[in-house]
Amino acid sequence: MFNIALFGVGRIGRIHGQNIHDHAQTNVYSIIDPYKAGREELAKKYNAKIQTVEEAMQDPNIDAICICSATDTHVNFIEMASQHGKAIFCEKPIDLDLAKVRQCLKVVEDNDTTLFIAFNRRYDTHFNELKTRLNNQAIGQIESLIITSRDPAAPPAEYAKTSGGMYRDMTIHDFDMVRYLMNAEPTTITAYGSCMVNPEIGEAGDIDTSVVVLTFASGAFATINNSRRSGYGYDQRIEVHGSQGLLTASNITENSVKQFGDQGAIESNPEYFFLQRYAEAYKNEWNHFVEVLGGAESRSPGIDGERALALADAALVSLTTNKTVVL
Amino acid sequence: MFNIALFGVGRIGRIHGQNIHDHAQTNVYSIIDPYKAGREELAKKYNAKIQTVEEAMQDPNIDAICICSATDTHVNFIEMASQHGKAIFCEKPIDLDLAKVRQCLKVVEDNDTTLFIAFNRRYDTHFNELKTRLNNQAIGQIESLIITSRDPAAPPAEYAKTSGGMYRDMTIHDFDMVRYLMNAEPTTITAYGSCMVNPEIGEAGDIDTSVVVLTFASGAFATINNSRRSGYGYDQRIEVHGSQGLLTASNITENSVKQFGDQGAIESNPEYFFLQRYAEAYKNEWNHFVEVLGGAESRSPGIDGERALALADAALVSLTTNKTVVL
Amino acid sequence: MFNIALFGVGRIGRIHGQNIHDHAQTNVYSIIDPYKAGREELAKKYNAKIQTVEEAMQDPNIDAICICSATDTHVNFIEMASQHGKAIFCEKPIDLDLAKVRQCLKVVEDNDTTLFIAFNRRYDTHFNELKTRLNNQAIGQIESLIITSRDPAAPPAEYAKTSGGMYRDMTIHDFDMVRYLMNAEPTTITAYGSCMVNPEIGEAGDIDTSVVVLTFASGAFATINNSRRSGYGYDQRIEVHGSQGLLTASNITENSVKQFGDQGAIESNPEYFFLQRYAEAYKNEWNHFVEVLGGAESRSPGIDGERALALADAALVSLTTNKTVVL
Amino acid sequence: MFNIALFGVGRIGRIHGQNIHDHAQTNVYSIIDPYKAGREELAKKYNAKIQTVEEAMQDPNIDAICICSATDTHVNFIEMASQHGKAIFCEKPIDLDLAKVRQCLKVVEDNDTTLFIAFNRRYDTHFNELKTRLNNQAIGQIESLIITSRDPAAPPAEYAKTSGGMYRDMTIHDFDMVRYLMNAEPTTITAYGSCMVNPEIGEAGDIDTSVVVLTFASGAFATINNSRRSGYGYDQRIEVHGSQGLLTASNITENSVKQFGDQGAIESNPEYFFLQRYAEAYKNEWNHFVEVLGGAESRSPGIDGERALALADAALVSLTTNKTVVL
Repeated sequence: MFNIALFGVGRIGRIHGQNIHDHAQTNVYSIIDPYKAGREELAKKYNAKIQTVEEAMQDPNIDAICICSATDTHVNFIEMASQHGKAIFCEKPIDLDLAKVRQCLKVVEDNDTTLFIAFNRRYDTHFNELKTRLNNQAIGQIESLIITSRDPAAPPAEYAKTSGGMYRDMTIHDFDMVRYLMNAEPTTITAYGSCMVNPEIGEAGDIDTSVVVLTFASGAFATINNSRRSGYGYDQRIEVHGSQGLLTASNITENSVKQFGDQGAIESNPEYFFLQRYAEAYKNEWNHFVEVLGGAESRSPGIDGERALALADAALVSLTTNKTVVL
Repeated sequence: MFNIALFGVGRIGRIHGQNIHDHAQTNVYSIIDPYKAGREELAKKYNAKIQTVEEAMQDPNIDAICICSATDTHVNFIEMASQHGKAIFCEKPIDLDLAKVRQCLKVVEDNDTTLFIAFNRRYDTHFNELKTRLNNQAIGQIESLIITSRDPAAPPAEYAKTSGGMYRDMTIHDFDMVRYLMNAEPTTITAYGSCMVNPEIGEAGDIDTSVVVLTFASGAFATINNSRRSGYGYDQRIEVHGSQGLLTASNITENSVKQFGDQGAIESNPEYFFLQRYAEAYKNEWNHFVEVLGGAESRSPGIDGERALALADAALVSLTTNKTVVL
Repeated sequence: MFNIALFGVGRIGRIHGQNIHDHAQTNVYSIIDPYKAGREELAKKYNAKIQTVEEAMQDPNIDAICICSATDTHVNFIEMASQHGKAIFCEKPIDLDLAKVRQCLKVVEDNDTTLFIAFNRRYDTHFNELKTRLNNQAIGQIESLIITSRDPAAPPAEYAKTSGGMYRDMTIHDFDMVRYLMNAEPTTITAYGSCMVNPEIGEAGDIDTSVVVLTFASGAFATINNSRRSGYGYDQRIEVHGSQGLLTASNITENSVKQFGDQGAIESNPEYFFLQRYAEAYKNEWNHFVEVLGGAESRSPGIDGERALALADAALVSLTTNKTVVL
Repeated sequence: MFNIALFGVGRIGRIHGQNIHDHAQTNVYSIIDPYKAGREELAKKYNAKIQTVEEAMQDPNIDAICICSATDTHVNFIEMASQHGKAIFCEKPIDLDLAKVRQCLKVVEDNDTTLFIAFNRRYDTHFNELKTRLNNQAIGQIESLIITSRDPAAPPAEYAKTSGGMYRDMTIHDFDMVRYLMNAEPTTITAYGSCMVNPEIGEAGDIDTSVVVLTFASGAFATINNSRRSGYGYDQRIEVHGSQGLLTASNITENSVKQFGDQGAIESNPEYFFLQRYAEAYKNEWNHFVEVLGGAESRSPGIDGERALALADAALVSLTTNKTVVL
């Protein structure tokens, strides 16, 4: 049994908390959060201690920490945990500043710490089936990858300021999937963005609609289609064209009921957002982290967090200069 | 080039007329119909003669007749054409009276006449693909066949009186498909019917909703689901379960557009009715009839018309006696 | 927190055990099973007591029992628990003998006991969405219900002898769904059965392939298509035709990946069997039972178990007499 | 009845020839082709004259010419026909040289000639349904258009030399669809191309795999995904994301049969190539041309041919300079 300290009791912290609790080999040992009511609620629910950051870091009973706190706390918590010999499960991103991320990963490397970046889509059953088939050459050599990722509804414009912008906050998942599925690093990136959903997002200096094209040494391409608002749920699709055919992973619908009548045949929309769509992925992710605690090789180590952020930064350069960035 | 005399210029007569015209080896030679305006319109359109029944039967230039006239004229036209050595393409049914049908087929047999029953579904591309796979043992031995056939909207109640009732008029196509796909004759038939669409149909002595179950010596079953009104277009589906899997032929939709929004994901309904759904089947059917004129073996000879009607009659006995009929 | 005694640690007992454990308001209090290794494993896993039947029945700490033991123990456990004032969650069937079931339900009624029959499909998200829409008159009045239920692979022939036969063991779920969805009791039932999957099943006196037709006073029909072996996973579909359209609930596939190539476009099959297909339904079912413990009205009380068994018995009469049974 | 002179009896000429013949208001009046056997075959089939180019141009009985000859003859035939007062139906492209196209359109304009560019996709039932809904604001304002167009198999490398390259030969259809669906002219274009299908195509100076991104003043984007070889038939899909939802037009499959078994659920692939996929579009196109002959406004006048070629040229500049081209 691994004792886990849970940092952060927000929406995503609660998901991981439940999965930590449900897993036969892990245990919510303690809760750390500046928000009193929240930490007390979860501590009670899981019969866990309430600790300060320092207490948790120094508690020899704790095997690993699960970081679900605000983005600007991640680097600090990672470095502290690394120095105290604890394994780390960290929600993306490590940080919005690439230099800080690199510095942080240096600490992690120096201490030989397990740092697991929670890129949830890597643990989705459907995308992994697709990945497995790519690895098995089911469609030969990859020629074109198209990722569609549209959120159901745009966040408040103020969010744009703290989130690091759409590329660092939202597209970063797609950048990671590009790297994961292509099994190669892109050679160029070109970003096209506009503000079509909410003008206030534009006034805040961000975009809400985007296309990004990445090219690879093999001659292959990857395209990412993003919008902050779909109008029909969370649109999460992947399409890979290869030398011998096509693989697609389509959306998961809310239910399988179809209604035929005067107005046509109506199916349910894609599951509404990440909490629904990736509920199983979060479980798989935690299962894998426990395997990593047990010695298995991580499928999303810290370097993946750095690389995805580097692509987000390059996309932003391309967007603001209207030029292709050579990587 | 085969010269064809077209009997009947109603809805179905016009479809066959166009296909006769379009086919490189056939020609609308003459039009026979008591309705003056209609026969003149088509004669002009196809540059064809207008003839009486007797003229057509005796005209040595005519190779075959295409019977699209009222049901109660079919037997007479078939027998006359048979006696005059003409090949016959006949819309279903041969007649509503099984004894008359048998007598008529005797005449056809005695004269060694080509009699082709226009069971359009046998010539549908999709159902034929399914049939081909059944023949190729794609799913092993057939265990269960389910045919769904629902018209888009019920005919007027008066139609029930002249049509011979739902089993002889509508389900007869399904009875034929059961025989065609099972490649065997059923051993029992049980019919369940009710009047749920339009009470006037019930008052006219007919039903509008039905389930029919047929059993086979092999242990297999066939089920036919019928309604005179679907509410969503023409529902024409087939499902066959076999010892090694399942084959389905689904509906053909009006178009491939799908719209996602607040209300869900909406596709277009199945094509509205037989004129749309089987437009290609009618072409294929005529193409095959021309092959038969050229010496090929018919895929829907007169006997198929008799057998399907016999099943309709047996279904009616079952319905009125509330008992299974052993065939 | 409700303390639950779990009777039976087989496949289905383990599913319910985990759901009892995961639910915030229930707790696996004790394990009862004649199989020593199994009961010890689960007792350890959930930190639960090991009890005899009598100990559990007399333990005042126990609020409810969860019966997942062999079918022939159900009635005894239900009656004992009823007499000891415990709520009961019971896997179907109550018993294979209708008289015993009725006697048992009398005891339950006399003691005013909560008896919850675990008809899992009533708690499936997809089927419930369909049910909700039927209730909301989304397609008007129901005219035809078609349930397709095919297991992935046939059980051993010996199973036929102890299971009560296909209708009491497998189709009983479909009988329950017919009642649940039609919201009415059928007036007649006719069963057609054969042995096409495994001759040994026939030699054991059972069937493995079946069609059952039920009629209703409204004029509506319900058809159940069953096979003990599909060849492509667990086929669980529902289709309801009504006066204003059609509702379908299709299979849930193993994943959303589709592969296009030389051989066509391949999707994954339906989820393999009930453990996968109804994993979420089992959770929902337990959630609802906890609500019932809290005072909510049960959506599957004991009477539903009786009625479904009565239909299975009537189907068997129909099958063996080759006649429609009036209910 | 309009008399049509058919220029060219190749694959596409035969399609239009048949449609001209089948249309109630048009007639294959004469055939013009340097290939003797071909012109004689079609002349016989349609009971048409054989003419030289000059004879056809000067024949006062001819209302319109249908140009299906080699690309490098188009401009000459258009100009001649324009000067002789004949309406023109011309297969794309007008020419591979934009300057020549513009000069040609000048002649057409000066003579006030009807010039109809046969962009077949504009006449596809499915794409037009999508277009109609866009016009009706079914999904609000367009934000992102994604066109996928993959041929089933690459042409011989020599073809690259005469065809004008992938952008002018193949993508030109997609450029036209972008303009047609967006109902606006793009402001920038960026092309990414590589040679992944056949190295000989690269050696001939062409590409076989490409992504093109076009931006619009509204902030919207259009992306075109192309490959000269799909491995699974002709991939022709359109997806439009708007402010209120999504519209997709999916592929049309060869048939509606689906087979479930050990290997999964297999559907048929998309129809193989343009002859199958757009057979109906070619009919619709000719129907519309006849309406234009009758005075209706053309939905694909000469200017559309010029604009699509200009985009192809700009794409080529972008490809060779690795830069975005401002239009």
